[in-house]
Amino acid sequence: MKKMMLAAAMMTGLAATAAQAQVAVKHIQPNEKSPIATGVWAGDTLYLSGQLADPVTPADVAKGTPAVYGDTKTQSLSIFNKIQKLLKEQGLDMKDVVKMTVFLAGDPANGGKLDFPGLQASYTQFFGTKDQPNKPARSAMQVAALVAPTALVEIEVIAVKGK
Amino acid sequence: MKKMMLAAAMMTGLAATAAQAQVAVKHIQPNEKSPIATGVWAGDTLYLSGQLADPVTPADVAKGTPAVYGDTKTQSLSIFNKIQKLLKEQGLDMKDVVKMTVFLAGDPANGGKLDFPGLQASYTQFFGTKDQPNKPARSAMQVAALVAPTALVEIEVIAVKGK
Amino acid sequence: MKKMMLAAAMMTGLAATAAQAQVAVKHIQPNEKSPIATGVWAGDTLYLSGQLADPVTPADVAKGTPAVYGDTKTQSLSIFNKIQKLLKEQGLDMKDVVKMTVFLAGDPANGGKLDFPGLQASYTQFFGTKDQPNKPARSAMQVAALVAPTALVEIEVIAVKGK
Repeated sequence: MKKMMLAAAMMTGLAATAAQAQVAVKHIQPNEKSPIATGVWAGDTLYLSGQLADPVTPADVAKGTPAVYGDTKTQSLSIFNKIQKLLKEQGLDMKDVVKMTVFLAGDPANGGKLDFPGLQASYTQFFGTKDQPNKPARSAMQVAALVAPTALVEIEVIAVKGK
Repeated sequence: MKKMMLAAAMMTGLAATAAQAQVAVKHIQPNEKSPIATGVWAGDTLYLSGQLADPVTPADVAKGTPAVYGDTKTQSLSIFNKIQKLLKEQGLDMKDVVKMTVFLAGDPANGGKLDFPGLQASYTQFFGTKDQPNKPARSAMQVAALVAPTALVEIEVIAVKGK
Repeated sequence: MKKMMLAAAMMTGLAATAAQAQVAVKHIQPNEKSPIATGVWAGDTLYLSGQLADPVTPADVAKGTPAVYGDTKTQSLSIFNKIQKLLKEQGLDMKDVVKMTVFLAGDPANGGKLDFPGLQASYTQFFGTKDQPNKPARSAMQVAALVAPTALVEIEVIAVKGK
């Protein structure tokens, strides 16, 4: 028993040390040209970069037409699909999102104001559903402008691989 | 001693595995109608959703008067009290707040500009006091608009259950 | 062997307990007059407060000239140098930044719009270089206003001490 007590004491020390050294950091940066990472793992926590929508209709150089990105609802849907894809590539899914921040730009189709119902219409397809009841902690607000002039929505999430 | 060394080696492995699997995620979402969680625990980290002020005077349907929310100082005080209550329900308190982000809307009473002294007047009642000397890492800025038209302040915090 | 199995079972329990209790929180608040912390450690995660630029030319009381802060590129460079210094004081460096949020104010020199190339010109000196290839997850946007009227940029980071 003495040996076991001693071993226990030793192990506790080892466990503490091991736990402190458990944070493996992994930068996901597949695109060399991108100045930022797609996301970064820190232990079981995945920080994803703010995501913008893909165009509904890409630019057509031959026709000379610009890319079309759609309204707040459409852009939000595109972003949530992108986030889901990025999470799945990392072995996670929407259920694992613990924190979300939504940066909205004023929507010209809404008199330059943020289109909250548009955001919600897409958001509620992924969070708090029968199949995926988890909801993240969230903040949402209208900013003065996003980096891309066509962007009406930017969404960043923190996801955690739970046990 | 050999047995102990072997046991030690085994334990270290076990400890590492145990540590990796330690992140219990818990979504606090008592209100079925709310599209977002009140907060989410990820291990020892609690992410709270951005909080808005409660009205100082609720709307009176009989009299036909709208809810009154007050100025930046008043709304900040309401929010800090809400955050404290939410933290206490989770076994935490203001001392455990590690990160805070403050989103201010332009205050009409301040010419449409952010009222930083108003925020600070309420903030300093909870952080950096004699009784509660801890201060969080913080960012604060004025956004274009918050989701609720009456809101002048939205505050989100990350709190951690320390040892 | 039985003893070892028992010891192993005990240790696993101890390790789990140890891991849960591993989060040491440390508030870095050297300046008593500052209402916020410079940063807060939570386990291996360091949350730094949003940083503003130092003036390129300090105010000169004798001459009656105000402090000069420079444009978006200049302010960003000042901030990244400040962040690097703060990280180094904590045993970290730019490579350890896992998440960054950039709040830009409209730059008068850019027609009141955000100066993204200005931000990038300074950012790319610290992230994704040959010597420091790591890039953080990042979101960047223009807010309505920062707390200091002279500020065009505020940057907050989360850094993690990896193994």
